[in-house]
Amino acid sequence: MHAIRKRCALLADHPKFTSLIIALILINAVLIGFETYPSVYQKFSSWFIIADQLLLWLFTIEIIIRLAGSRSLKSFFKEPWNIFDFVIVASGHLFVGGHYVTVLRILRVLRVLRAISIIPSLRKMVNALLKTIPSMGTIMLLLGIFFYIYGIIGTTLFKSIAPEYFGTLHASLLTLFQVVTLESWASGVMRPILAEDPASWWFFVTFILLGTFVIFNLFVGVVVTNVEEANAEENPSPTERKLIEVQKELEEIKQLIKSQNKNQQ
Amino acid sequence: MHAIRKRCALLADHPKFTSLIIALILINAVLIGFETYPSVYQKFSSWFIIADQLLLWLFTIEIIIRLAGSRSLKSFFKEPWNIFDFVIVASGHLFVGGHYVTVLRILRVLRVLRAISIIPSLRKMVNALLKTIPSMGTIMLLLGIFFYIYGIIGTTLFKSIAPEYFGTLHASLLTLFQVVTLESWASGVMRPILAEDPASWWFFVTFILLGTFVIFNLFVGVVVTNVEEANAEENPSPTERKLIEVQKELEEIKQLIKSQNKNQQ
Amino acid sequence: MHAIRKRCALLADHPKFTSLIIALILINAVLIGFETYPSVYQKFSSWFIIADQLLLWLFTIEIIIRLAGSRSLKSFFKEPWNIFDFVIVASGHLFVGGHYVTVLRILRVLRVLRAISIIPSLRKMVNALLKTIPSMGTIMLLLGIFFYIYGIIGTTLFKSIAPEYFGTLHASLLTLFQVVTLESWASGVMRPILAEDPASWWFFVTFILLGTFVIFNLFVGVVVTNVEEANAEENPSPTERKLIEVQKELEEIKQLIKSQNKNQQ
Amino acid sequence: MHAIRKRCALLADHPKFTSLIIALILINAVLIGFETYPSVYQKFSSWFIIADQLLLWLFTIEIIIRLAGSRSLKSFFKEPWNIFDFVIVASGHLFVGGHYVTVLRILRVLRVLRAISIIPSLRKMVNALLKTIPSMGTIMLLLGIFFYIYGIIGTTLFKSIAPEYFGTLHASLLTLFQVVTLESWASGVMRPILAEDPASWWFFVTFILLGTFVIFNLFVGVVVTNVEEANAEENPSPTERKLIEVQKELEEIKQLIKSQNKNQQ
Repeated sequence: MHAIRKRCALLADHPKFTSLIIALILINAVLIGFETYPSVYQKFSSWFIIADQLLLWLFTIEIIIRLAGSRSLKSFFKEPWNIFDFVIVASGHLFVGGHYVTVLRILRVLRVLRAISIIPSLRKMVNALLKTIPSMGTIMLLLGIFFYIYGIIGTTLFKSIAPEYFGTLHASLLTLFQVVTLESWASGVMRPILAEDPASWWFFVTFILLGTFVIFNLFVGVVVTNVEEANAEENPSPTERKLIEVQKELEEIKQLIKSQNKNQQ
Repeated sequence: MHAIRKRCALLADHPKFTSLIIALILINAVLIGFETYPSVYQKFSSWFIIADQLLLWLFTIEIIIRLAGSRSLKSFFKEPWNIFDFVIVASGHLFVGGHYVTVLRILRVLRVLRAISIIPSLRKMVNALLKTIPSMGTIMLLLGIFFYIYGIIGTTLFKSIAPEYFGTLHASLLTLFQVVTLESWASGVMRPILAEDPASWWFFVTFILLGTFVIFNLFVGVVVTNVEEANAEENPSPTERKLIEVQKELEEIKQLIKSQNKNQQ
Repeated sequence: MHAIRKRCALLADHPKFTSLIIALILINAVLIGFETYPSVYQKFSSWFIIADQLLLWLFTIEIIIRLAGSRSLKSFFKEPWNIFDFVIVASGHLFVGGHYVTVLRILRVLRVLRAISIIPSLRKMVNALLKTIPSMGTIMLLLGIFFYIYGIIGTTLFKSIAPEYFGTLHASLLTLFQVVTLESWASGVMRPILAEDPASWWFFVTFILLGTFVIFNLFVGVVVTNVEEANAEENPSPTERKLIEVQKELEEIKQLIKSQNKNQQ
Repeated sequence: MHAIRKRCALLADHPKFTSLIIALILINAVLIGFETYPSVYQKFSSWFIIADQLLLWLFTIEIIIRLAGSRSLKSFFKEPWNIFDFVIVASGHLFVGGHYVTVLRILRVLRVLRAISIIPSLRKMVNALLKTIPSMGTIMLLLGIFFYIYGIIGTTLFKSIAPEYFGTLHASLLTLFQVVTLESWASGVMRPILAEDPASWWFFVTFILLGTFVIFNLFVGVVVTNVEEANAEENPSPTERKLIEVQKELEEIKQLIKSQNKNQQ
């Protein structure tokens, strides 16, 4: 039993094994891409179904090998990316049958995401991106409050003037998201409302000024965080390394003087 | 009297008291959200009015407790956030009656803003954002002059060609704000004018080049200010701390040499 | 003669003199603003003309005082802002008569720009902005080449498909400026062309990718330049100042040891 | 033979030779510009053809001189810019005849790009821009995966609702590029789809949030890389240079003390 575990672990860590899985993910991606073209799909539909089943089982075998090769079930599922891989593959077996066609299709697309968990450089980058999310918590809360207040004011004021944009609270929130991306905020949203209510410009102008200002600050926060982290990685900096050398030399000089003192006495 | 003040101060500082107020603000926000859906509001309108009155009185009690708990009226109103809370709640009592329905509605929405004054991390962030405003003074003045000049030139040149966009000075200023956000500046604003006056492109191109350049510099100013402030907070930097250590060691060495001199004489 | 020069210099440097000029510029700005409203202008047109003449002569007197107060004509015109002020005011006297109405109007608006030359903080900021322009020379040349090549290719390929956007080389360049600001580049410009020539997407996609990449780098250059200049102003930095102190102390220690050596011999 | 090589090398390095080539490129650019105006071209078409042939041969002579002046064929083609120049000019001779009119036209426009290889400051800047590309590899892969997944989901969901935007996988990818530039993403793409499928907003909102977040991080990466490279160029920094001086002085002090020790013994 122990021998099998060791062999599986060796196999799972082998670079060629990883390359093979990346190749399978690529084949899977290309197949899904071709399936979206009806002319191709209708001609070879049976082949697509066979290839898909084959890939699903190959991925299943991969997960089993990696699971068998890990020290314990617990240590395997401790790593979030393993859970991610497991769920993606396992769900392929669960939603079998004609009822879940759309669910299955999206799951098969999500298998492409496994490239992130397999390719180390992608994994590292996504981990770094995910790490910046918690630090955005407070600013997201602030943006949420800001959107909610403008959403309610917008719904109250423009419900009857522009039902398409401000008919309900959730329609208003979507419109405000559109406005904050600066997309057709004037030509599409504001000007027709302005024709009915000439004082409504303050709503849009203040929203854009506040919104872009806060979002820009959010981005600045991300920049500063990233730069600081990058600096922290190469800690200590060249300057600090030089200073440590200086301190060592000072220590030497002190010892020299002290030994001199002893000699004299 | 003193005992009551102490009790109120203890109560106002209690984390559970803060959590309760946050919960009330959340309930208030959700209620206002539901009120925007006519189907919901018409069914439970009497309940909404009761809940709103209840919340207003609970907020009033909260303010009274915090007021009673503060050392003096003066010290309470010294803190701008307290004035903000007081005004929001007090105005809820002032504008009673059918005449001020819209005012009351907006005031009730603004109560959601009280989340900022209650949640410490939000308060800190908004204080930081507010601090960056004075440093933008000069650049805002420059932008103002720049908008004003282009506004007058635009009104003079395009008043009769595009009355919708440049009919009056204030319409021109709003259009220029739209142009600086790059929204439909060409397809909506410039191209119809260009069809009448083929030389008008310089107005829009120079405005966009100057405007985005100045605004980008404004944002850079904010970035630099923020980064510098963040650095100033962790003052002195690791490098400077190391240098202070070096100076101490040098002092020691000097003392050693001096004592040696004395010994010799 | 010398006494007059001294008096004028004292007057020109007096803060109240500056405040008065700022006030006059402000009045000038407000008057020009009101002139754009026909209902106001037609009622008080004669007053506007008198006020404008009065302001022009007051500005002329101001320039004469400052000119008389300066050491020499040469030293006065050495400062570019003085030339700017002189040209703005002098041109107000030159273009008299009904033929130059539009020129005069624009000149009167440009008088508002004199606020920049009068208010020191604005002057400093604009000087800083102007300083960043030469460093953009090379990147502007690169952008120019890039626009020119795409302009010619665009005109060659889409002249007959979309004459409105790519009919002539200068129309193409304007359209490319619109595309690089991302304004209606797809909905307005590309999609109608795509309907005729399905392979044309590469033209727009590569242009946007290259254009935004180069422009973003231009902005990064400005950021880095600005930050470095801000750092250079507070030169030497706190770290460097500390290091200079360290070097001084080292010099002292060396002297101490040397004097010790002499004592021993 | 050797004498000719030396002469050619001297000629190719001469500043006036470079200025002449820049002038020829400029003339070439202006000619191509005028050719796009049919009224000008039809009048002087024969002159344009002659001028073009002349310029082609002048560029050919230039390449021959530079080739003759280089140490060997290998050393000449080692420099990528030389290959670039050679290909641009050589292809002008290859595609002769009426069949390749469009290819020739584009090749003639690309000759303007030779300004980059000739003007040193442009060459340096483009080299710097090209250097930043490899560091974007991983993030481009991530963006690719992200676009591909959203492209397939979009095609699956909206193929029948909006065939213009999501009819095929490549149409979807182009639409997603449009959406990520925030151009008409709501007014043009989302709102018509939303009218048919009210739940489709999540597709666009999540795509924009993820896409702009990842792209912004890509840009931050470029910024950090650029700033770090700029710092590395002026390596060592002023602080480090000062520290090296400090270390030298410490070494001197050590020698002083050691010599003192010897004296005493």
